[in-house]
Amino acid sequence: MRVLVVGATGTLGKAVVRALSERHEVIRASRNGDVGVDIRDPLSIKAMYEKLGKLDAVVCTAGKAHFGPLAEMTPEKMAVGINDKLMGQVNLVLSGLDHLNDGGSFTLVSGILAYEPIRSGANGAMVNGAIDAFVTSAAIEMPRGIRINAVSATVFEEALDHYGPYFPGFKPVPVADAALAFVRSVEGATNGRIFRVGY
Amino acid sequence: MRVLVVGATGTLGKAVVRALSERHEVIRASRNGDVGVDIRDPLSIKAMYEKLGKLDAVVCTAGKAHFGPLAEMTPEKMAVGINDKLMGQVNLVLSGLDHLNDGGSFTLVSGILAYEPIRSGANGAMVNGAIDAFVTSAAIEMPRGIRINAVSATVFEEALDHYGPYFPGFKPVPVADAALAFVRSVEGATNGRIFRVGY
Repeated sequence: MRVLVVGATGTLGKAVVRALSERHEVIRASRNGDVGVDIRDPLSIKAMYEKLGKLDAVVCTAGKAHFGPLAEMTPEKMAVGINDKLMGQVNLVLSGLDHLNDGGSFTLVSGILAYEPIRSGANGAMVNGAIDAFVTSAAIEMPRGIRINAVSATVFEEALDHYGPYFPGFKPVPVADAALAFVRSVEGATNGRIFRVGY
Repeated sequence: MRVLVVGATGTLGKAVVRALSERHEVIRASRNGDVGVDIRDPLSIKAMYEKLGKLDAVVCTAGKAHFGPLAEMTPEKMAVGINDKLMGQVNLVLSGLDHLNDGGSFTLVSGILAYEPIRSGANGAMVNGAIDAFVTSAAIEMPRGIRINAVSATVFEEALDHYGPYFPGFKPVPVADAALAFVRSVEGATNGRIFRVGY
C-alpha cells in the first residue's frame, strides 16, 4: 500500500513509520519535512494532496492541544486544540477523500483524556472527544469502501519527560504499542472504531 | 436559586424554564430576548454576565450545528457547530465561573449523535462528543464547589417535523423528559455527569 503518515517526525509518528515501512511504501509528511504540511491550514493540506497523487491510506499522528489550568483557559487557548489536533485532522479527511483509492483508510489520533480527566487537560479532552465522535459518525458516510478509525492511547513511556507530571498514576505504554493499533487500522477491515491503547 | 437559562425561547429552553420556574427565579436569555446574548461572541457573553450579577446556576439549551452530507462538508460548515454549540457553551462556562456563587452549577446541552451516528450528522456528533469530554474534564477543576454536567438527549417529539427525517428508527422523547434532566443537574449534587435521556 501507499501510505501517507502526517506527523512523521514526532515520537508517535516515527514509531508508526517504522511499523508500516516493513510492508508498505510510506510517505512522510510533517511541518518541516520533505513533504511539508501545516495541518492548521486547509490550503496547505490541499496542496500536499495535489502533489502526492493517489493514496491507499492516510495516517495522522500529529496534533497539538493546549495544556493549562481551567481557571486560566481562554477562547484563544481552546482554539489551539480546535485548529490543530481537531480541525487539522478533520480537514485531512475532508480534503483527502478524493485522493484515496477505493477501499482506502484514514486513521486519526485522539487520546485517553476524552474519558479520563486530568488537571489542565480540558482542551485536550474536548478535542479528543470530538475526534472520536467525528470518526464514529463519518464512518457511516465513507464512500467507495473507504474506512476511518482513530487510535486513542494513554501517555507514552517515551513522552514521560514532558507529559508525565500531567498524568499521575497513569501506567504509560511504549509508543510501539500505539503504532501497532495504527497497523491494525490500516491493514485490518474495521470501520468507525476507536482503538484504545493502554486504557 | 437564581438560574440563568440561555436559549430560553427554544423548544427545549421553554420546557426547561417551565420546569425550573416552579421553585426558582429564572432569568431567560436568548439571541433576541429581554436578556440578549449571542453565544458565538465571547464579548456578548461577558456583557450579559456583567449585567446580571451573581447567579446560582447557568443552564444552556442553545447551540447550533450544521446538518449535511459528509461528502459536502467543508471547514466552514464544520465551524458552525464549533463556534456555536461547542465554543458558545465552553465560553459560557469560562466567563461564567466568576459570576457563579459557591456551590453553583453549569448544565450544558450535548446530544445522542456523539455515540449514535446518523447520516449528515458529523458536525453535530463531533460537537456533542467535544462537549461531553469537556464537561467530564472541566468537572475536576471546578472551584468553590461549583459543578458542571451535560444533558444528552435523543431527538425530541416536538422537533420531529424538522429533525425526524435525520433520525430514522430513533424513538423520540418528549422535551419535558430532557427538562427533568436539567432539573436533576441544577438541584442535585452530581458533577461531571452526562445525563442521557431516551438512549
